[in-house]
Amino acid sequence: MSETGTTFGEQRRFGFEELALPVIQAPMAGSGITTPELVIAACEAGVLGSLAATYCSSEQIKHDVRSVRAGTARSFAINLFAPTADPPRPANAGAELGRLRAWHERMGLPAPSLPETASEPFEEIIETLIGLRPDAVSCTFGLLPPPVMQRLKLAGVFLMGTATTVREAQTLEAAGFDAVVAQGAEAGGHRGGFARKPGGGMVGTMALVPQIVDAVRVPVVASGGIMDGRGVAAALALGARAVQMGTAFLVTRESGAPRCYKDKLLGATDESTVITRAFSGRPARGIANLFTEEVERLGAEPLPYPWQNVLTRPLRRAGIAACDPEVLSLWAGQGVGLARERSVQELVSALRREMQTTIAEMAERAGQHGEKSK
Amino acid sequence: MSETGTTFGEQRRFGFEELALPVIQAPMAGSGITTPELVIAACEAGVLGSLAATYCSSEQIKHDVRSVRAGTARSFAINLFAPTADPPRPANAGAELGRLRAWHERMGLPAPSLPETASEPFEEIIETLIGLRPDAVSCTFGLLPPPVMQRLKLAGVFLMGTATTVREAQTLEAAGFDAVVAQGAEAGGHRGGFARKPGGGMVGTMALVPQIVDAVRVPVVASGGIMDGRGVAAALALGARAVQMGTAFLVTRESGAPRCYKDKLLGATDESTVITRAFSGRPARGIANLFTEEVERLGAEPLPYPWQNVLTRPLRRAGIAACDPEVLSLWAGQGVGLARERSVQELVSALRREMQTTIAEMAERAGQHGEKSK
Repeated sequence: MSETGTTFGEQRRFGFEELALPVIQAPMAGSGITTPELVIAACEAGVLGSLAATYCSSEQIKHDVRSVRAGTARSFAINLFAPTADPPRPANAGAELGRLRAWHERMGLPAPSLPETASEPFEEIIETLIGLRPDAVSCTFGLLPPPVMQRLKLAGVFLMGTATTVREAQTLEAAGFDAVVAQGAEAGGHRGGFARKPGGGMVGTMALVPQIVDAVRVPVVASGGIMDGRGVAAALALGARAVQMGTAFLVTRESGAPRCYKDKLLGATDESTVITRAFSGRPARGIANLFTEEVERLGAEPLPYPWQNVLTRPLRRAGIAACDPEVLSLWAGQGVGLARERSVQELVSALRREMQTTIAEMAERAGQHGEKSK
Repeated sequence: MSETGTTFGEQRRFGFEELALPVIQAPMAGSGITTPELVIAACEAGVLGSLAATYCSSEQIKHDVRSVRAGTARSFAINLFAPTADPPRPANAGAELGRLRAWHERMGLPAPSLPETASEPFEEIIETLIGLRPDAVSCTFGLLPPPVMQRLKLAGVFLMGTATTVREAQTLEAAGFDAVVAQGAEAGGHRGGFARKPGGGMVGTMALVPQIVDAVRVPVVASGGIMDGRGVAAALALGARAVQMGTAFLVTRESGAPRCYKDKLLGATDESTVITRAFSGRPARGIANLFTEEVERLGAEPLPYPWQNVLTRPLRRAGIAACDPEVLSLWAGQGVGLARERSVQELVSALRREMQTTIAEMAERAGQHGEKSK
């Protein structure tokens, strides 16, 4: 159904078939990484670009959407975090505040303090989003409130949810999402799941995608560990309709990632990443640095999300300004050893070429083995 | 080189090209799972069967090899664990012995006690193996002593090592292994790595395989999360020369896995497995049960390998005899939700059919997107 590109009112509905290559440039929230320039370049190269609305003001979102629309006529997605019932302001933040003091000194910041509030202004962002009538919205950390889902669907928005398990995928489909992003354990950045057991939801892409494909009828987007055309072809083989790639776009010339972050990505290997709660309070995969290693070594207990996130924000901002990778959240997937710096157009061209070569070679090799089996 | 099937003395050297389908039936040590019947069925179906030599006496190995050779003329592999310098007999095993007491009572066993020795008789097994001149040997947990490598190579044996990281793969290649099994984090059973940082080596198959393919010249075998022909095709897309599958063969009719184990596998989902040291002292992936959950809940510290392995052996043997899945090591990969009971021949036929369909569909879909991009 979502594949037919039907019109809803004035708006033509997004479908994967309109992409020249079945690839989504992953939204990467914060740090000014997914700039309009990156999204425009992705769309113009023939894949689905994504803006990240989370951590942005309404004005910023409107500005970014206008910028993208000025640069491309193609569809793009906007990502947001599902609203969560935030835990009360932690009363026992003393240990974490104490630990951060030396880090603040390192960056020349005043002593850390815990803000009074931490919530993102979800209602306001949603009103802004609906007003902008985006082609597609992708959602991380679970479900949107049913009235919001209904309004987005009425507006003809193509809705993608994030699942780290089969159960989550089924929940998203039942809630009306038009596609499910299957986030394998390899993926960089936040674990996007919402219904998993503690410590669960770390299913690798190779195992996760076909199990989700078999469990839902909506299109499945594979993410986690996909870095080149071999990975795109592999994901299609598993039954995915498209793939979502973050790390590969992070190192492109159009990405707004700070230079020191890109250098860390370009020097990393398959062993460089860890899952950490150090920055936001939620588990996320990134390159280990002094900040994550200290949390690990001390057995420090970060505050729950979103409190840890607002607590470490000044530090991360100072880290960007000073380009100090030891205090930045260096989100990256386990495929980071394959990251190469180039333009988005060069990346997408390589993906297409590699994917086509891969498929042609597979067809040839499969034929050879097929001969033997006769 | 390994692909040419050259002759070494009297023996024709194994190469993947002689398989009708590029699949290895994974060796599964212990519990009488990889019976000669299973290995024969795998070989006769056109894939590479594997016997497990670890935990077996020389007499048992000789008997199994003779049985397989009586049932098939095709190549098969024998797996063994690389020898390790065993840690001294733990002096502080009291807590673990105390914890196991209730489990021994449950199974009607006398109180647990720690044996005086734990080592496998590696030298004897190696002499037996070399005498048997197997077609292929696969090795878990690292390197073989250089003189052993040399003798196996002189005997024309095709040598496969297990890597969970790029560095391990490079180490195996440098040591003379003819192929590297890239074991993704999804894989069931023991983590086969040997050079990883503590807590490391959990790289997903989708990320691990292409990074290893790019780092070594020897053929790479993908393992972890591959359950059907979609997975085989995906692994080939990533550049693997073949795949190794364990869980899918565990549930076949020819597998020697106890009925209660098969039932657990057939009822499991993507969320059912955990990494545990509870049974052997080494991290391994299996379906969570009362035994692994107790270790987790109590924060119990299993003894180091191989001491935990010999300590829990009576319990696991009693578990097989009584078919009590709560005390068995229920090794399984994260793809277990796709497990289906059938004969090996039916499994391999399905793999071939699914792989060919997948590749044909991919070629068609890639062509469609290619059209759009013109």
